[in-house]
Amino acid sequence: MALIVQKYGGSSVGTIDRIRNVAQRIKRTCDDGNQVVAVVSAMGGVTDKLIGMAGELTANPPERELDVLLSTGEQQSIALLSMALNELGVEAMSVTGRQAGIRTTGSHTRGRIEDIQPDFMCSQLEQGKCLVVAGFQGITPDGMIHTLGRGGSDLTAIAVAAAVKADVCQILTDVDGVYTCDPRVVKNARKLPEISYDEMLEMASSGSKVMQSRSVEFAKKYGVLFEVRSSLNDNPGTIVLEEHPTMENVVIRGVSIERSQARVTITGIPDEPGMSAKILCALGDAEINIDMIVSNIASDGFARHSFTMHSNDLGRAQAALKPLLASIGPDAKVETEAGIAKLSSVGIGMRSHSGVAATMFRALGEAGINIGMISTSEIKIAVTVDETRIEDAARAVHDAFQLDKPPVA
Amino acid sequence: MALIVQKYGGSSVGTIDRIRNVAQRIKRTCDDGNQVVAVVSAMGGVTDKLIGMAGELTANPPERELDVLLSTGEQQSIALLSMALNELGVEAMSVTGRQAGIRTTGSHTRGRIEDIQPDFMCSQLEQGKCLVVAGFQGITPDGMIHTLGRGGSDLTAIAVAAAVKADVCQILTDVDGVYTCDPRVVKNARKLPEISYDEMLEMASSGSKVMQSRSVEFAKKYGVLFEVRSSLNDNPGTIVLEEHPTMENVVIRGVSIERSQARVTITGIPDEPGMSAKILCALGDAEINIDMIVSNIASDGFARHSFTMHSNDLGRAQAALKPLLASIGPDAKVETEAGIAKLSSVGIGMRSHSGVAATMFRALGEAGINIGMISTSEIKIAVTVDETRIEDAARAVHDAFQLDKPPVA
Repeated sequence: MALIVQKYGGSSVGTIDRIRNVAQRIKRTCDDGNQVVAVVSAMGGVTDKLIGMAGELTANPPERELDVLLSTGEQQSIALLSMALNELGVEAMSVTGRQAGIRTTGSHTRGRIEDIQPDFMCSQLEQGKCLVVAGFQGITPDGMIHTLGRGGSDLTAIAVAAAVKADVCQILTDVDGVYTCDPRVVKNARKLPEISYDEMLEMASSGSKVMQSRSVEFAKKYGVLFEVRSSLNDNPGTIVLEEHPTMENVVIRGVSIERSQARVTITGIPDEPGMSAKILCALGDAEINIDMIVSNIASDGFARHSFTMHSNDLGRAQAALKPLLASIGPDAKVETEAGIAKLSSVGIGMRSHSGVAATMFRALGEAGINIGMISTSEIKIAVTVDETRIEDAARAVHDAFQLDKPPVA
Repeated sequence: MALIVQKYGGSSVGTIDRIRNVAQRIKRTCDDGNQVVAVVSAMGGVTDKLIGMAGELTANPPERELDVLLSTGEQQSIALLSMALNELGVEAMSVTGRQAGIRTTGSHTRGRIEDIQPDFMCSQLEQGKCLVVAGFQGITPDGMIHTLGRGGSDLTAIAVAAAVKADVCQILTDVDGVYTCDPRVVKNARKLPEISYDEMLEMASSGSKVMQSRSVEFAKKYGVLFEVRSSLNDNPGTIVLEEHPTMENVVIRGVSIERSQARVTITGIPDEPGMSAKILCALGDAEINIDMIVSNIASDGFARHSFTMHSNDLGRAQAALKPLLASIGPDAKVETEAGIAKLSSVGIGMRSHSGVAATMFRALGEAGINIGMISTSEIKIAVTVDETRIEDAARAVHDAFQLDKPPVA
């Protein structure tokens, strides 16, 4: 008998009928001889509706109260799913974030899981119960209700799986698994049977929005093996796990793309210590997420820094940098470019194989695609290209690495 | 500065606009130099909607899960009202049943308040906060969410007032206070400035459905002075308090009526011990609320028992009694009568004044109204009459006791 954590998102429990379907799926898993802990989000649309009601009252709701309000969404779905399970003869019990012992830190509406005290869940599991745990919520050190922000239910599922020592954590979602590239872009993209945590992290931060990075990081930290699979069928999905030797046979695991990027370049920076920090702090204070950072010395002897960010942030970035220019130097200037996209090739095999960048750049060159910025990590090579060419670029690189074919054992 | 508990029901917080109005009313009370603890119900309609969703999933939802589901209604309204108050500049904080320290006993969906541990509320009040407490909910000894059943928010307000030692508990509702009789029936009914707990209890159990008996009992037990007043205006309401000597100047405080009653009479009962218990247990097992009980020995030497109940329960009462008849005796028979109503005259002055029953019966006789059953307590005389005559009866008795005129000091 395996102990399985299954996470169902808001669209999976979006209507009473869908809640019934989820209950039937959990029952099948139980009938196969497993014990299930389901982690569920609020019914699709409920959270937005609650935020809308708060918005009618005030433009600045106290975040503590927003947490009290929003956490009711998950509390409703765990009660309803428990009812549906009991109706099917599965002895199920709802478990709020507090009852699950999920201790959090951080500010309201953006909690981080610090620790789980699973005594209550474990005692109920020992009695053979199926548990239905509220995602997205926990309790602050002083006992206040706390929500975990975006992607919080995935995080809850991974953390609960670690705490109850589950055999696997299934993230049931609207995609079939993790693909070598977005199948809407690359028709012969292939579903990966497995991927390492590090590769998943690089894919996540490169636009493959199956899961948020922090959930993958949490899983890596606690060694939680998890599977991304579809809530609509019983096909096996993609297992995400610690890398093992045979995984390195694959040089590139996948290619991810991220659209709607923009570049900001600051030129005329005196080549002195502290300049980069000054610039990055200003962008950080403006709460702008910087992605790629490229810096070098130009032929004029000045340094130039380039950053990418989501194009929505471009205006705020310009506003944050403008007052800074005078303090950087008399020649400092800001240039911006919108309409770019990022392509990343990711694979742990890169560590032990050479020539990866060459293959990738050659493929892009042969397709007539100009490369903008280049940024690399140990297991990733990322480039920016013109956004109009990103799909061509993805197909060219996917072909060059023959990602449509299963790797040779 | 007074510490005031204000209870707002579901219709008072039924829309975002009404929540804003409630916030304004609380702010006015604070601006007058008071500190406020608001106890609120779920937004009108929310509880019914949640019950409807549960009903779509199962005809028999586990009551534990129903509690988890229904308690979200109050949790939403406390968060929203706190937001509205902060928007008006009142430093307010929501408090769930758990945070309020409301310890309960009893089965799920029908909890009773056992105890309140108000440490959290008191520490927040000391910091000058306005508190917004979820009505209708508490926590079982093993930490599960528990709801208090019908009238639960009134009970929460009274209990919170006792726990934080409030100066007064205002029950804000859609009526102006407690009247000498239902003003829709008796046009010259008069709002009572005050009424004793015992009178309020007799009025409540006699059809004046301002508040449930258990809330009044709780207030009496803990000496909580409370006021029933309108949430729609600032008129003074009716103060409910322990009786004091001058209250006895009034013989009859009020007249209450209850419609849709039915009578069941069992005849041919051998005059032996244990017969009444057998009959009442059978009705109790069928969860039928008996109101009046009248029993005597008929001229044939057999006992006859008569009961009143809501006419909706009549069919179930007959079904519960039928299988019992053979074991009562060969002559036992059940007679039923629907279409009756109950009229009660209530007043603590009755204890020290004689002739009250005579005045009441004379008034009914002069109006040509036939009396069915009669039942009395120390401070109440109740009779049944034909339902078609109940309004005439109420007017006749109200006039006979001159309840339209303020009592002479």
